[in-house]
Amino acid sequence: MRPNRLRELVTLKRPAINAWLSCNSGYIAEVLGQCGFDSVTVDLQHGQFGMDVVPSLLQAISSTDAMPLVRCAENSFGDINKILDSGAYGIICPMIDNRQDAERFVRACRYPPLGARSYGPARGLLYGGSDYFDAANDTLLTLAMIETIEGVKNIDDILDVAGLDGIYIGPNDLAISMGINPGGSWEAAELGVTICHIVERCQTRQKYVGIFCGDMAMASAMKERGLNMLTPGNDIQLIRSEAGSRLAKLRE
Amino acid sequence: MRPNRLRELVTLKRPAINAWLSCNSGYIAEVLGQCGFDSVTVDLQHGQFGMDVVPSLLQAISSTDAMPLVRCAENSFGDINKILDSGAYGIICPMIDNRQDAERFVRACRYPPLGARSYGPARGLLYGGSDYFDAANDTLLTLAMIETIEGVKNIDDILDVAGLDGIYIGPNDLAISMGINPGGSWEAAELGVTICHIVERCQTRQKYVGIFCGDMAMASAMKERGLNMLTPGNDIQLIRSEAGSRLAKLRE
Amino acid sequence: MRPNRLRELVTLKRPAINAWLSCNSGYIAEVLGQCGFDSVTVDLQHGQFGMDVVPSLLQAISSTDAMPLVRCAENSFGDINKILDSGAYGIICPMIDNRQDAERFVRACRYPPLGARSYGPARGLLYGGSDYFDAANDTLLTLAMIETIEGVKNIDDILDVAGLDGIYIGPNDLAISMGINPGGSWEAAELGVTICHIVERCQTRQKYVGIFCGDMAMASAMKERGLNMLTPGNDIQLIRSEAGSRLAKLRE
Amino acid sequence: MRPNRLRELVTLKRPAINAWLSCNSGYIAEVLGQCGFDSVTVDLQHGQFGMDVVPSLLQAISSTDAMPLVRCAENSFGDINKILDSGAYGIICPMIDNRQDAERFVRACRYPPLGARSYGPARGLLYGGSDYFDAANDTLLTLAMIETIEGVKNIDDILDVAGLDGIYIGPNDLAISMGINPGGSWEAAELGVTICHIVERCQTRQKYVGIFCGDMAMASAMKERGLNMLTPGNDIQLIRSEAGSRLAKLRE
Amino acid sequence: MRPNRLRELVTLKRPAINAWLSCNSGYIAEVLGQCGFDSVTVDLQHGQFGMDVVPSLLQAISSTDAMPLVRCAENSFGDINKILDSGAYGIICPMIDNRQDAERFVRACRYPPLGARSYGPARGLLYGGSDYFDAANDTLLTLAMIETIEGVKNIDDILDVAGLDGIYIGPNDLAISMGINPGGSWEAAELGVTICHIVERCQTRQKYVGIFCGDMAMASAMKERGLNMLTPGNDIQLIRSEAGSRLAKLRE
Amino acid sequence: MRPNRLRELVTLKRPAINAWLSCNSGYIAEVLGQCGFDSVTVDLQHGQFGMDVVPSLLQAISSTDAMPLVRCAENSFGDINKILDSGAYGIICPMIDNRQDAERFVRACRYPPLGARSYGPARGLLYGGSDYFDAANDTLLTLAMIETIEGVKNIDDILDVAGLDGIYIGPNDLAISMGINPGGSWEAAELGVTICHIVERCQTRQKYVGIFCGDMAMASAMKERGLNMLTPGNDIQLIRSEAGSRLAKLRE
Repeated sequence: MRPNRLRELVTLKRPAINAWLSCNSGYIAEVLGQCGFDSVTVDLQHGQFGMDVVPSLLQAISSTDAMPLVRCAENSFGDINKILDSGAYGIICPMIDNRQDAERFVRACRYPPLGARSYGPARGLLYGGSDYFDAANDTLLTLAMIETIEGVKNIDDILDVAGLDGIYIGPNDLAISMGINPGGSWEAAELGVTICHIVERCQTRQKYVGIFCGDMAMASAMKERGLNMLTPGNDIQLIRSEAGSRLAKLRE
Repeated sequence: MRPNRLRELVTLKRPAINAWLSCNSGYIAEVLGQCGFDSVTVDLQHGQFGMDVVPSLLQAISSTDAMPLVRCAENSFGDINKILDSGAYGIICPMIDNRQDAERFVRACRYPPLGARSYGPARGLLYGGSDYFDAANDTLLTLAMIETIEGVKNIDDILDVAGLDGIYIGPNDLAISMGINPGGSWEAAELGVTICHIVERCQTRQKYVGIFCGDMAMASAMKERGLNMLTPGNDIQLIRSEAGSRLAKLRE
Repeated sequence: MRPNRLRELVTLKRPAINAWLSCNSGYIAEVLGQCGFDSVTVDLQHGQFGMDVVPSLLQAISSTDAMPLVRCAENSFGDINKILDSGAYGIICPMIDNRQDAERFVRACRYPPLGARSYGPARGLLYGGSDYFDAANDTLLTLAMIETIEGVKNIDDILDVAGLDGIYIGPNDLAISMGINPGGSWEAAELGVTICHIVERCQTRQKYVGIFCGDMAMASAMKERGLNMLTPGNDIQLIRSEAGSRLAKLRE
Repeated sequence: MRPNRLRELVTLKRPAINAWLSCNSGYIAEVLGQCGFDSVTVDLQHGQFGMDVVPSLLQAISSTDAMPLVRCAENSFGDINKILDSGAYGIICPMIDNRQDAERFVRACRYPPLGARSYGPARGLLYGGSDYFDAANDTLLTLAMIETIEGVKNIDDILDVAGLDGIYIGPNDLAISMGINPGGSWEAAELGVTICHIVERCQTRQKYVGIFCGDMAMASAMKERGLNMLTPGNDIQLIRSEAGSRLAKLRE
Repeated sequence: MRPNRLRELVTLKRPAINAWLSCNSGYIAEVLGQCGFDSVTVDLQHGQFGMDVVPSLLQAISSTDAMPLVRCAENSFGDINKILDSGAYGIICPMIDNRQDAERFVRACRYPPLGARSYGPARGLLYGGSDYFDAANDTLLTLAMIETIEGVKNIDDILDVAGLDGIYIGPNDLAISMGINPGGSWEAAELGVTICHIVERCQTRQKYVGIFCGDMAMASAMKERGLNMLTPGNDIQLIRSEAGSRLAKLRE
Repeated sequence: MRPNRLRELVTLKRPAINAWLSCNSGYIAEVLGQCGFDSVTVDLQHGQFGMDVVPSLLQAISSTDAMPLVRCAENSFGDINKILDSGAYGIICPMIDNRQDAERFVRACRYPPLGARSYGPARGLLYGGSDYFDAANDTLLTLAMIETIEGVKNIDDILDVAGLDGIYIGPNDLAISMGINPGGSWEAAELGVTICHIVERCQTRQKYVGIFCGDMAMASAMKERGLNMLTPGNDIQLIRSEAGSRLAKLRE
């Protein structure tokens, strides 16, 4: 099976720089894959599209060296099965608050006996290779999002679940869950402490840990702390940031 | 945040006239928005499309003065989150039978602490404005469909749920639930009594109440009773009605 | 080959009542086909879609008894070939001003030696049947739009072209070409005279003649004159007309 | 209501030969419907598309004599309702392990009082006919997939559920559930015994039974055993098989 | 008719800052419209999409204050008619080399007697308003691209054509036409001189002049020279520029 | 620039086995690319789709080792430019009858000074590499279809055109042009002689020559004659052939 570069980067102790796709354009997906990102995550949760466009977005990413990942819209067995069959090499699942949530997530991602994923790998077979069934459970990456106080409390229970590779931190929802407005500084009081606690638990237990970074200062700080995956903003933030800067220069 | 015209109409004590979109055409969506309807509801339950086309249908409506609403396909946390992120200004949720259903619905629609909606407002931010997070809970309209006998029995429990604005009545499913064929006269025996009971409970408790009307006689009667929202048929009924009339004239 | 009902209606001396599709919804296309229209014309000229959706719109119409027609966007060999391969049973071609235009149109519609249509009937074969190649030239309907003064002047030259079945009149562009604003009464002075002249030339020469009717009075008048095809407005006019009437009743 | 040919074939004691669509092309769907298959199943579980394209795929099949079926992605009330409203004449539901699963499935497929399907038949009405509501419960086919050991154990409980027509066997997931790799011979040891047991239970109880066949030897064997529905591979297997054979000949 | 803000900016002697869309995402289109650009140009020439998506891209832009423009793929009567009917408020036409090209372009853009545009304004009517037919010829902007040596030679002939508003300069094709590789500095020797000559001819004759700018230095220089429209790169350049910068920081 | 494998196969004196895509499914496109074909040709002429889906079909092929080719719908400058910008590595152009046709075709395919292709390589740059502009003229394959008697007469004039790589033979249209029904044996009388003549002219002049083969006997014969490219049927023929064979076995 085609190896998962994100696992190789762990061995190399290098962070994966991950792009985040929230628009439905295969062209943008391919551009991000060509830019040098190690992976591109198709965001089905807050992205502006549904399941129909996922196969072609993953095909677009597959024509580049970047690993194709998907954040599913919710912890749904049927959706996650479909996404993996379309060739995703990893799933980021939102709103994992406790062990049961994590078990349900793994059940959808792994073939028996580890999970209950249904057989029919479709595009996964084309992208992964003919030994897909034998190697998929060891190759595909499964990341649970911790983004509530409840999730933080249950982090060790969550990390105990066999078949789960690690955690992807959602700072905005975590902030809201703590009564803090989203979009502020990640270091603010309790939020920073909590994020660092999650990272520490993952690293102590040698689990994968990634995070969405609202700005570059946060991304740099997270790199310093040795996280496995850094997402320096999404496609819309990239385009707005550069457009805003160019407009400002020409409107001076 | 852009104000919700449907709330203004409540203050003005004028009914909202609502269009109902069951085809996947953005052009039809925009035409309905331009016709003079106060809102256009994208019907994901019985409409002939899925989630992928929702953002472009809402964009089409957003280029008019009509408020963009969505009837979700079911009471799904993930779906409702996505729909709101695409810029819907209200959700009509089918098959709310009891307090738990209503609580689950509100949980998906409202940001914490009122609910558990995940942060990532995407197109909502473009349409609503930069203060979207602060004002969304007070702006977006949440209507639970009562369309079974069980829902009628539990109406007061349902109306008790904080964060729920009111009720949207589904007469056809309600009729079926009472053993009456759909598509008949709304005034028939028990059905009319039941509909009036629902309206009365909402009005007594100063909650929003709207209804889908199979014909214009029903729409006029509902207007008389002071409902907040009247839907005089869907797109298909409009086109079939006029086409049928023109065909009949030319075939005489 | 599946017979062309529009040709049967000529024999029966009954007018075809034709629907006009300008939105991209296959559901609306099927609804119009089910309503009782004899044909549904997919409008690629002023319709809000391009070539990609044409096959599925024609499939939608093909699941009904209505004949699938297309108005092409312009007199393009490649476009017309594609449209016929997708299973259209007739083409209405805009802006035919003279014999050369008409010859070019026929060249795209008919297999050699009558024309130069390229072989590859694709969906045409599925809908038409296995003898498609042998019978297509005699089955598919070719209608040239006369919608300029120049076209009117050259009508006899146009009708002389072998392989052309007749004329479809475009009253709005014809009016503009005569210096009259579109959307007015068809009977206005010169416009009505000109339309009647076109009809007379076709009927005298036993050619097919159809027309787009902006209102029902015009449709009825054209029926009286014995035209072969009447189009009583397009999808948008149907929906706007009924929506406007319902809104007016509820806003009284 | 348009009769369900699959029910007629049961009366005629002839097996339905069923095609399986896993790509999103309406053209392929129509080709399969024209080839001579008795039904075409749109596979929403492992197929490479989502809900948005379903209506147009069903329209494509509806323009042929083949019955339009859908395998849903999972046992979801909302999804199954939508699929039926789009005109499917039968649902194959994956992963039915016990009576509760089967009851939940039937609840989504049948109108009250047998189930809780919501009213709004949309395209179903166009394809089925104006008496759709009265006849749908008796016309539409409901097949539960048995594809785990647990399902096999509970087969009699499952078959007891009123409103369920029968079983569709998924040999690959069944094999995996028994610790056998998918894609091998169906006769292998326990797998063949188990499949025959399922068939026997259905036939004894006069329930419908169909199966997906990985190769033609299996399809022939299943035909011998008198199953009601045989699926001789999916679209991808058809195209790969013939392409592989042609490539081999030209590469010799 | 809704006024064309680009004409107002001419009166205000302020340059329009124009965004350039080459991906097929309505979400990106709306984001660009919200960013503060005065117009967004949908690029059908080198953009990665065809005609089907144009109406929804224009709807997306129409829900913002930015003016919706389109660069057509070529000087095609049918294509330009369709684009205007979809609500574009201006057309940029590539490869205008001489007076005949320019006349052909204007013929497609203007209603008679100025041109030969066919009547059927569809979405144009929704976006523009009910007096669209009367005001369209004076409102919609028509810009001919000069991007070859031949076009430069014939610039005065081109500017003479009634109904043409001005010129949009394509520096890359112009460079290639002069034997210079694209993507270099615009000031390079002859290229800069030629660009300035085009600008001077337009300004002397009080015609509109805009330009695509490969980098911000060029955009600033063009602003200094008083051009009416500046395009500071396309969507892909914006996203690549910011992505490249963020990747570089994190890879240091 | 990524090398064109079809040129390498010429050097290796091995024929390219080419797949032909006439459906709009990216999944089928990728499957064909994975099957072992050397190239996959997206057929815009008789295929059931338009320009909008082309970029995603080419992305699908690009994720495999097969070379992405396109048959354009007609000899259109704008269309061919767009197709190349979407990353096609070769164009097959229908209906080239004489030198002027061939020159027009080359003009659209080659950058100046060889042709007049407009600069904006978009996806071509992603798939081809950063030196695309410098190497494209030497890398991309240009094949003119000869499929009429007139084309055969002018074959030497056509082959004289600089920048044209060779010929792709269309036997069906050629047959029709000779008064022979399509779909018969290629060896029939004059048709076989004519095909062999075309092949001989190309080979004598060391030009590329390919052909569409209606059956495997023809494909084998053409292989024997040393053609550079063999297309053993299209996607629909592959699927119908295998489906027909399986249905026949099960219906025995």
